Amino acid sequence: MPQTLNIGMIGYKFMGRAHSNAWRQVDKFFPLKARPLLKVICGRDEKGVKAAASQLGWRDYSTDWREVVRRPDIDVIDINTPNDTHAEIAIAAAKAGKAILCEKPLAMDVAECRRMLAAVRKARVTNMICHNYRRIPAMALARKMIDHGDLGTIFHYRARYLQDWIVDPKFPLVWRLQKHLAGSGAHGDIHAHIIDLARYLVGEFSEVSGLMHTFIKKRPLEGKRGFGRVTVDDTAMCLARFRSGAVGVLEATRFALGRKNSIQVEVNGSKGSLSFDFEDMNRLKYYNNADPAAARGYRDIIVTESVHPYVGAWWPPGHIIGYEHTFVHTFADFINAAASGKKVSPDFEDGLRNQEVLEAVERSEKSRRWEKIRS
Amino acid sequence: MPQTLNIGMIGYKFMGRAHSNAWRQVDKFFPLKARPLLKVICGRDEKGVKAAASQLGWRDYSTDWREVVRRPDIDVIDINTPNDTHAEIAIAAAKAGKAILCEKPLAMDVAECRRMLAAVRKARVTNMICHNYRRIPAMALARKMIDHGDLGTIFHYRARYLQDWIVDPKFPLVWRLQKHLAGSGAHGDIHAHIIDLARYLVGEFSEVSGLMHTFIKKRPLEGKRGFGRVTVDDTAMCLARFRSGAVGVLEATRFALGRKNSIQVEVNGSKGSLSFDFEDMNRLKYYNNADPAAARGYRDIIVTESVHPYVGAWWPPGHIIGYEHTFVHTFADFINAAASGKKVSPDFEDGLRNQEVLEAVERSEKSRRWEKIRS
Amino acid sequence: MPQTLNIGMIGYKFMGRAHSNAWRQVDKFFPLKARPLLKVICGRDEKGVKAAASQLGWRDYSTDWREVVRRPDIDVIDINTPNDTHAEIAIAAAKAGKAILCEKPLAMDVAECRRMLAAVRKARVTNMICHNYRRIPAMALARKMIDHGDLGTIFHYRARYLQDWIVDPKFPLVWRLQKHLAGSGAHGDIHAHIIDLARYLVGEFSEVSGLMHTFIKKRPLEGKRGFGRVTVDDTAMCLARFRSGAVGVLEATRFALGRKNSIQVEVNGSKGSLSFDFEDMNRLKYYNNADPAAARGYRDIIVTESVHPYVGAWWPPGHIIGYEHTFVHTFADFINAAASGKKVSPDFEDGLRNQEVLEAVERSEKSRRWEKIRS
Amino acid sequence: MPQTLNIGMIGYKFMGRAHSNAWRQVDKFFPLKARPLLKVICGRDEKGVKAAASQLGWRDYSTDWREVVRRPDIDVIDINTPNDTHAEIAIAAAKAGKAILCEKPLAMDVAECRRMLAAVRKARVTNMICHNYRRIPAMALARKMIDHGDLGTIFHYRARYLQDWIVDPKFPLVWRLQKHLAGSGAHGDIHAHIIDLARYLVGEFSEVSGLMHTFIKKRPLEGKRGFGRVTVDDTAMCLARFRSGAVGVLEATRFALGRKNSIQVEVNGSKGSLSFDFEDMNRLKYYNNADPAAARGYRDIIVTESVHPYVGAWWPPGHIIGYEHTFVHTFADFINAAASGKKVSPDFEDGLRNQEVLEAVERSEKSRRWEKIRS
Repeated sequence: MPQTLNIGMIGYKFMGRAHSNAWRQVDKFFPLKARPLLKVICGRDEKGVKAAASQLGWRDYSTDWREVVRRPDIDVIDINTPNDTHAEIAIAAAKAGKAILCEKPLAMDVAECRRMLAAVRKARVTNMICHNYRRIPAMALARKMIDHGDLGTIFHYRARYLQDWIVDPKFPLVWRLQKHLAGSGAHGDIHAHIIDLARYLVGEFSEVSGLMHTFIKKRPLEGKRGFGRVTVDDTAMCLARFRSGAVGVLEATRFALGRKNSIQVEVNGSKGSLSFDFEDMNRLKYYNNADPAAARGYRDIIVTESVHPYVGAWWPPGHIIGYEHTFVHTFADFINAAASGKKVSPDFEDGLRNQEVLEAVERSEKSRRWEKIRS
Repeated sequence: MPQTLNIGMIGYKFMGRAHSNAWRQVDKFFPLKARPLLKVICGRDEKGVKAAASQLGWRDYSTDWREVVRRPDIDVIDINTPNDTHAEIAIAAAKAGKAILCEKPLAMDVAECRRMLAAVRKARVTNMICHNYRRIPAMALARKMIDHGDLGTIFHYRARYLQDWIVDPKFPLVWRLQKHLAGSGAHGDIHAHIIDLARYLVGEFSEVSGLMHTFIKKRPLEGKRGFGRVTVDDTAMCLARFRSGAVGVLEATRFALGRKNSIQVEVNGSKGSLSFDFEDMNRLKYYNNADPAAARGYRDIIVTESVHPYVGAWWPPGHIIGYEHTFVHTFADFINAAASGKKVSPDFEDGLRNQEVLEAVERSEKSRRWEKIRS
Repeated sequence: MPQTLNIGMIGYKFMGRAHSNAWRQVDKFFPLKARPLLKVICGRDEKGVKAAASQLGWRDYSTDWREVVRRPDIDVIDINTPNDTHAEIAIAAAKAGKAILCEKPLAMDVAECRRMLAAVRKARVTNMICHNYRRIPAMALARKMIDHGDLGTIFHYRARYLQDWIVDPKFPLVWRLQKHLAGSGAHGDIHAHIIDLARYLVGEFSEVSGLMHTFIKKRPLEGKRGFGRVTVDDTAMCLARFRSGAVGVLEATRFALGRKNSIQVEVNGSKGSLSFDFEDMNRLKYYNNADPAAARGYRDIIVTESVHPYVGAWWPPGHIIGYEHTFVHTFADFINAAASGKKVSPDFEDGLRNQEVLEAVERSEKSRRWEKIRS
Repeated sequence: MPQTLNIGMIGYKFMGRAHSNAWRQVDKFFPLKARPLLKVICGRDEKGVKAAASQLGWRDYSTDWREVVRRPDIDVIDINTPNDTHAEIAIAAAKAGKAILCEKPLAMDVAECRRMLAAVRKARVTNMICHNYRRIPAMALARKMIDHGDLGTIFHYRARYLQDWIVDPKFPLVWRLQKHLAGSGAHGDIHAHIIDLARYLVGEFSEVSGLMHTFIKKRPLEGKRGFGRVTVDDTAMCLARFRSGAVGVLEATRFALGRKNSIQVEVNGSKGSLSFDFEDMNRLKYYNNADPAAARGYRDIIVTESVHPYVGAWWPPGHIIGYEHTFVHTFADFINAAASGKKVSPDFEDGLRNQEVLEAVERSEKSRRWEKIRS
């Protein structure tokens, strides 16, 4: 492994921690075409970013993302800043010829996504959106089985992304509950994930009917007295028709007590079904209608075998992996693509397609009717 | 128990078997104000109904429902014939002053439901619609807990009724797949059940956005060559808003391989959540947000304790009951109401309300927009 | 079905209720060679047995079992009295030429079992011990799969029968906790069941090492002041070697809080494994090592299909059955054997074999060493 | 964090990978009194150890453990070589004044364990045995709840450690299946783990009755023709009595098809129960008998909250962790003890106690009777 990829990472909060971990871990477990070097971490607050550099294992730090993007010794720009900054950074990075890994959602709206996509296409740089859940081994296995025809024609996609962290009305008006900062609520944050998994497993959406709702309209301000208005959705859901003829139901909420990070996905086809729950992410349930009639049932596949995607790189069968590993898998594929200037999936085009579905749901919530995906 | 209720049952197929069983069993396990007597069973085919009478334990049989309804020695008319006959029989029975137990759906449309409701109101007879799933002990317990405030304000209702019995395209064009005989497909047959459970647990619907779809449009004719058109839905689903402010997602399908009779219901409120799966019908999952933070989790309540609704009448804790028992519970409450001329729930008005929701979903499928419930 | 079998049932408490239900139900659901007639129920307390006759659907009652056994119009004697009376009644019934169905355990000790077996053999009457759990559809399916070779050579049997009804030290000294009345505690009551399932699924025991223990040694007397000594085991368990070379672990207790009637059984063989939990009695988990490597996992078979043993007689797929149905299945097979004078399994010889294992465990508890099964 | 602990690790195979990962990760996620430096990795094969050093992130490598133990710049010796070398290395390390972390089992027999314990006591060095499963958050939470009295008096401990990797008779005679190299089979390898968890949760064993068995007696030799004798157990199990009065059942096997690394542990007490399965290691099931009668059931605690032991250092609630994290937790506690010269648990004395139980089971297998723990 002679080659090295020098990483510049913009942003250092929750996602910065998960990304740093993946950059550190990936060459210890996966065969790579280049070894990533944690070169520079970037954030606006010097004290914070300096501490993060030391804590997370970066050689250097910077408070100016433009400077990082310009540095000739940097090969990769990893963007995990707030959504409203993605487009500007990504476009600058593309112009500078860097390979780009960008957190989801790709941008604030479809227009921004299009500009970003144009930029990476023009620059011909490797680009990826970090929909890490595609590389849960169970999800990658699901995709493989569907591609292989194990499910036959797909009839149904149903998915729920349930959380419960803002049920308490005393929970304050954090930035994620304000539209001008977050874009949307559960919609862009978690609905986006099960929309991506739908595209990954079933294909492109054709049209949607959506519902978005805010249960608690006012919340205490952070750090000062008084209340402010919640301007994003607490829950977002939709009925969907896919181009393939399949139909779907998707629901995302932050108001399902007891569901911490529950992502349930089920796909029913003409030959079989698959079912998944992220709270048991090392398992995939599989129903094969070709099994003998008396011995048919959902198989509880513990996805920890060497024949399963990604997971063989870790530990022996039955020794489970967790959340952070999905990033390591994503970064391994990104590195191998970037090292050889190739494409990798999901890329900025996937980010755009996802945004188109999100916006169709938003239009539907307003128009109170079905809306076609515009692409 | 001096009193006897003489039962006349119209219809003797699948539901006739389940009803006969309940009439036979109910006084062996439940304290009743009257003992039911399986007096006469009625069907059009003399040979068939005669055999059924013998097999199912009825004293007499008849091939003329009008004659049964007229008989002065009959106290109760139990209707489990095809849907298109419910209204006529029920209205005649009401006029004859009989207590009436009618299978769901109540009738073919809202107009019929209204006429039936008017008839029983005028006659002041005990009337009930057989939404037996309300009397699954776990569902009755759920209702009790919600009434008691254990869940606080309800935010979410989500329910799925999944079956898989017509995935095979060679499955023939039975009457249930023809609109003029069955009214609708998954919609009236199983979607109706989770609509009823929604009304039972969360209250009245306000508006819906629906999707109905037929995956396999032509099927082999029964008993002859050739193919015919499927004129009902294979799947029906809706997004919903309730009057209380709660929101809901409901999905019913006959195309979910591996799901035999899977009814999943989840309710999330401000204080806790409940979750249920009919394939494990003796269990109710309950999340209590007031539990200590380190020891919070969905409780797996095995609903077989003497303190639980209905189930104490059967066997000791941990000895589970099954599908048929839900009818016995329903009939016990019906008998006690009928014996004293009282009301019982769910009644014909509930049948009407359910039909109103079904029709709103159908209107929405056509209009491609949200539709208010008309009542 | 011209023939009738007249039933005389001795005993009318908990098991009497379950048996009466089975006698009433069996001809409504199963094709039979004879129809059972609930002729006479027998108990010592006239008031009690008279009420039971009325409640449970028996034509006549008696307070003298000898008289019932003598009656020439009785074809079958069903014994569900306390254990210390089984032998005397069964031997008298055999002499009178009756077919006999006897509750488990067959008798108080091996010697009694031998005398009973000799009596039924001499009289050549149909005889059966009511180990109803063999006819849980999932257990019958398990046996069928093992017979068919689906598991290959059996290596392991592990089973637990866990209850929790006497954890409270204030629970009184009922007859089941007194050796001279009950014979033993958890051992004969529930350990006996998983010993029977072991013999059903894996074959004969060869030797055992046992442990029996009483956690709460004194308990309040019933109906009077003071405390009395508990003279039976609260828990009984053993390691086992089978003649086939398989090894086993069995554990029974009444001290496992939260486990109401939890019977967990797992069998591992060279080709696959089976796993079962009575609290989910309509399911059987099956691991087939011949499944493709990437799609191997325990199948969650919902044992409600028409191809599954017994259960097709009841309701459509996914509509579960419960505890009481296991008796109906048992009685159906008994009736068909008795009507034609044939053998049925498990019979009194199985009762004897079970008792031999129970006694070996008891000897081991005293000798503190492995004990061979004496047969 | 001014201080640094220089680590010398002896052994670099499977456990070497897991340990290296933990040394690398621990300071990124846990507050520590010293930062570990991956100084030198040691193995006999120069080529292999050199590649491992590069792959796993060690600065230097060595082929002579004695040289590593002598190096004055090394603070900690981490031993994960084969069992027959533990004692010699550990005793040398103790004499050299190093803190010692040793893989389980501590040594080949009780005598060796005693010598090792004497050495670390004399040298007063921090010593730990790597029973990493104690620091699964769910297990640490279980211990906390038991200590807090949530379970009351403990009645039962039951545990199974099930694997399936040598069911195939063509699986070769690897070193783990040869007594002179491995000491024992499932017994020392995995039975040891559930014995340790028993001691952690319930306390000291008093006596055991054991069974050890080898299903497949001959296997193909590795790398050459012919067959050789398997000289270790395929399965080991025991009944147990604890000093506290509790009783236990433990079973370990490599012959349970479909069970990859299934560690099931259940503890029943007078106030509640706990249940755990390693294949779902982020969950702990808890039954609280003080819950209201109608709402009692095993709680499914997702052990990913900040109030739970260790896990708050990683990701938000519902984002699960995996196998490798148990090592990181163990190493964090070891480092903080070693940095301040304190004790940490489990230590070499725990290793000795574990070995005493293992040997009692082996004696029992030979004597065919109960054996007291000798200590």
